[in-house]
Amino acid sequence: MTVYKAPLRDYKFVLEELFDVGEIAKLPGYQDATPDTFAAVLEEGAKLCEEVLFPINLSGDAEGCHFENGVVRTPKGFKEAYDLFRQGGWTALAMDPDYGGQGLPATLNFFFSEMVASANLSFGMYPGLSAGACEAIHKHGDAAQKKTWLPKIIDGTWSGTMCLTEPQCGTDLGQIKTRAEPTERDGVYKITGTKIFISAGEHDLTDNIVHLVLARLPDAPQGTRGISLFIVPKFLVKPDGALGARNGVRCGGIEHKMGIKASATCVINFDEAEGYLIGGKHGGMRAMFTMMNAARLGVGLQGLAVGETAYQSARAYAMDRLQGRSLTGAKFPDKPADPLIVHPDIRRMLLTMRAYTEGARALAAWVAMAEDKANRLPDSAADEREANDDLVGLMTPIVKAMLTDNAYLVSNLGMQIFGGHGYIHDNGMEQLARDVRITQLYEGANGIQALDLVGRKMSQHMGRLMRRFFHPVDDYLRATMTDPALGEFAAPTYRAFARLQQVTAVLAQKGLANPDEAGAAATEYLRAFGLVALGYIWTRIAEVSLAKKASANGEAAFYDAKLATARFYMAKLLPETAALFASIGAGAKPVMELAAEAF
Amino acid sequence: MTVYKAPLRDYKFVLEELFDVGEIAKLPGYQDATPDTFAAVLEEGAKLCEEVLFPINLSGDAEGCHFENGVVRTPKGFKEAYDLFRQGGWTALAMDPDYGGQGLPATLNFFFSEMVASANLSFGMYPGLSAGACEAIHKHGDAAQKKTWLPKIIDGTWSGTMCLTEPQCGTDLGQIKTRAEPTERDGVYKITGTKIFISAGEHDLTDNIVHLVLARLPDAPQGTRGISLFIVPKFLVKPDGALGARNGVRCGGIEHKMGIKASATCVINFDEAEGYLIGGKHGGMRAMFTMMNAARLGVGLQGLAVGETAYQSARAYAMDRLQGRSLTGAKFPDKPADPLIVHPDIRRMLLTMRAYTEGARALAAWVAMAEDKANRLPDSAADEREANDDLVGLMTPIVKAMLTDNAYLVSNLGMQIFGGHGYIHDNGMEQLARDVRITQLYEGANGIQALDLVGRKMSQHMGRLMRRFFHPVDDYLRATMTDPALGEFAAPTYRAFARLQQVTAVLAQKGLANPDEAGAAATEYLRAFGLVALGYIWTRIAEVSLAKKASANGEAAFYDAKLATARFYMAKLLPETAALFASIGAGAKPVMELAAEAF
Repeated sequence: MTVYKAPLRDYKFVLEELFDVGEIAKLPGYQDATPDTFAAVLEEGAKLCEEVLFPINLSGDAEGCHFENGVVRTPKGFKEAYDLFRQGGWTALAMDPDYGGQGLPATLNFFFSEMVASANLSFGMYPGLSAGACEAIHKHGDAAQKKTWLPKIIDGTWSGTMCLTEPQCGTDLGQIKTRAEPTERDGVYKITGTKIFISAGEHDLTDNIVHLVLARLPDAPQGTRGISLFIVPKFLVKPDGALGARNGVRCGGIEHKMGIKASATCVINFDEAEGYLIGGKHGGMRAMFTMMNAARLGVGLQGLAVGETAYQSARAYAMDRLQGRSLTGAKFPDKPADPLIVHPDIRRMLLTMRAYTEGARALAAWVAMAEDKANRLPDSAADEREANDDLVGLMTPIVKAMLTDNAYLVSNLGMQIFGGHGYIHDNGMEQLARDVRITQLYEGANGIQALDLVGRKMSQHMGRLMRRFFHPVDDYLRATMTDPALGEFAAPTYRAFARLQQVTAVLAQKGLANPDEAGAAATEYLRAFGLVALGYIWTRIAEVSLAKKASANGEAAFYDAKLATARFYMAKLLPETAALFASIGAGAKPVMELAAEAF
Repeated sequence: MTVYKAPLRDYKFVLEELFDVGEIAKLPGYQDATPDTFAAVLEEGAKLCEEVLFPINLSGDAEGCHFENGVVRTPKGFKEAYDLFRQGGWTALAMDPDYGGQGLPATLNFFFSEMVASANLSFGMYPGLSAGACEAIHKHGDAAQKKTWLPKIIDGTWSGTMCLTEPQCGTDLGQIKTRAEPTERDGVYKITGTKIFISAGEHDLTDNIVHLVLARLPDAPQGTRGISLFIVPKFLVKPDGALGARNGVRCGGIEHKMGIKASATCVINFDEAEGYLIGGKHGGMRAMFTMMNAARLGVGLQGLAVGETAYQSARAYAMDRLQGRSLTGAKFPDKPADPLIVHPDIRRMLLTMRAYTEGARALAAWVAMAEDKANRLPDSAADEREANDDLVGLMTPIVKAMLTDNAYLVSNLGMQIFGGHGYIHDNGMEQLARDVRITQLYEGANGIQALDLVGRKMSQHMGRLMRRFFHPVDDYLRATMTDPALGEFAAPTYRAFARLQQVTAVLAQKGLANPDEAGAAATEYLRAFGLVALGYIWTRIAEVSLAKKASANGEAAFYDAKLATARFYMAKLLPETAALFASIGAGAKPVMELAAEAF
């Protein structure tokens, strides 16, 4: 059986001990977001996630969504859970107070979203997609559009979607065929086309669904430069805000998928549906990209969230399940066998899960806090704002890809600890692996993230984004690598970091002459970068833990565990970089030499 | 969509060019198993797998098995397919002619089984379990038992199972509780207990099911030394061979699993069921172990088989799907986009899949041929027989664990190449990943394989098993590493091989003083060993390909692909050993230091 309790103690560690969440309350508009507010909101959110969302996770997977005559019904309990979620104000958490939001920081929403995804990844898709739609309208809509659409999405009465993918294109949105024909009304178009893979595209949780749809105007240039964004509601909205006629939007079916079965993944057919241009003609890609960055960080977060549940569940099983004897002699001779936790290989798996999950949380929280700063720092701190914005841009593909790759690994290790029982649906572990598998695929498959890193972020502003990471990390590691206590963490990280810098320079150079050189190394480079970033984060965690441990009343074990996990990371996981650097060093030739037809 | 064509050309390469399958026909009793027989049988088997088994793979997954009132119904088409399978004599392929078998070698059965598992892993479970039961009865049964049970299992009228696992124990069979009470009839017992995870435990494909059940006699010593093996049929068999009364064996339910859904995984309740002792009192574990070795090789084979289907399917998709443009400029400017195959990261994934799958086939075939030699070489070649037996024993845990770990990786890369479409059931790729996931768990989870390697095989006969691999590989690599053409393959393999030898010596030493040192390194050691073994195999493949290429009429592309894949393996995959050796070098401390309660 899976278990889940929100890791509030670790949240406190990350927010108050490792980082200083107090900085957030100093940002304009966030003065109420004090550390105490964070703690209180997360404690309340934890109850909802543990008691309402987690109990319907396994049943939701078994039942899945139902589709009949264009209508989608979510699994038993989802509607009731959504009503509690909405009534609790959770859809409004980080939204603009001008439209009914609570105006809390992205960082707080980040931790809350982790709990939601840990408890029930499928459920979290519905409010998650709404948040994405909300952000697009908030950033790119005009005053009237904001007034019409935002309050109802923010209070959860309506939900939102992002309609990008079509049968012939996912990654390559330049191939989009959905058409938008002008009408005599200004800004109003008739949208016609078929979108697939639309999460929350149709369901029974809300009164209306507001689709954000990429489509092409008649005069549009070819490719991505000719794509525009439209608001296309399921039901039209009257001037007084009441729901009007059904729009020409129909769900053509739902996909049968590997996982997140309680999340409705829909085919949505638009047949001369009324749509409202947002973000200007041919400005669709720019508008979508602003949503996409946040969405990509959110997907990385989903990964670590599922990893947390996998770890907690595998840990509980390893403590409880009696199987075999310790290699060094029975530890519980009075029992029929020792618990799994005595076995080194079980410990190796648990520590891997823990090092990746806790490290990922700290890394992602660092980026989330930078996002709040990038969004809110005043003009008087424009340099710092830019620095934070750069860091978010740089780390987004790394957080998205590495955290989800690790999460799949972590979920599979969790299954492995359960042995054959991990393969059985009722025990819940295989669902975690199936569910989290989507995170490596959607919002840009992880290979696309790697190309974003080596093809865009690496060279952007003449390498300025890279320096936002390299310079402070270099300073920190040089200062700590000879420290008697911290050196065991900082020194190996520095060695990997130094090689990462060398490889970066080589790759930037070779990539200029031959882009395939960058492309062939991209996935391995992203992973090496991510592992080094985790090394840096684990060194900082170790630093704080060493400092806190001395005066930790009754909590020494908490910090000891952090230190042991940091040591494990340095000894057993960071060495993967050696393989990656060697593989990158082989260049593009081994990847490109085979003729396509010989595959 | 998935596609599958039996890779007969590669079979020919492995059997006739890389190895000399002609050696098999020189073994006593195998004189008919000439290379031509191999080719003819495999061609015939390919048709069955491609045309009968593969088309019901996806539908079998979607429908799954049905359970009602103790009766299990397999999915649509399975009964018809099984009848064709049986009528074609495929259940009898490698079985003893004295009982109706065709007496063909294990090596031939190996390649046929690969095709079956590539086409339909679930289907293959039914004859696969029969083969295991058959082997146990053949090796450990008395003359009357063989006469009663073997002919009907061999001709496929009946099937078999292996009943080991109970709710409280899987790996740790010493905890078995199922009881065997003597009756007044000699050798006849009443079996009572519950077994779980029984593949093919109940189904509608055969007239009878012959269970091989581990149970405990009343006077049995504790632990594994007190376990006996029993034949327990679903229907009793009358002296004339006709079916008699239903025995006290009932299916209590089937598991809902992550994959292999068309394979019935049953709870089997024995309630004073009539059972027949086989292999002597308390001789159960010994008897099971003889089956288990073959079964473990078979599971490794399942892994590579599914990897083959994943590769073929991903390759077809990468050629067909138009998405994005080559980084070096459009390759098909007249099409809306270039096919995926132009992208370096897609090629990296495909080459990884190919290197692991083709390398695995050659490695496993090497072991399969050694198995035939170990079983059949005459006393006049006792030394060579022992050498082959040693090699099989050593390589069994490596083949089982590494090939299945790689297969899961390969299947997931296949999904990744499909992007979001890989997550959709109808496209078949996610099924491959779900199906093959079981191979890492059953027949001894892969962590257990690693312990078998470092805890048993490494020290067995004072390291004799290890030398069966180390000595010839050392000779071969030393001889080839300075070769102008072969050096690029042999030299990197030799470097990894030399480190493997060092690590082996260190680990053997440290493990004596503290078994946790061996346990903590076991999984990484097995993988490093496996990767070095694949390096050796790819060097030999390269050697043959270089030699054949010169005179290859129209087949130069086949050998070029082998060489390019070998190069890719050396440059991009073998370097993983660097990470593994570094991680192993860290010793047990990082794994063992954290107190159990601090996890």
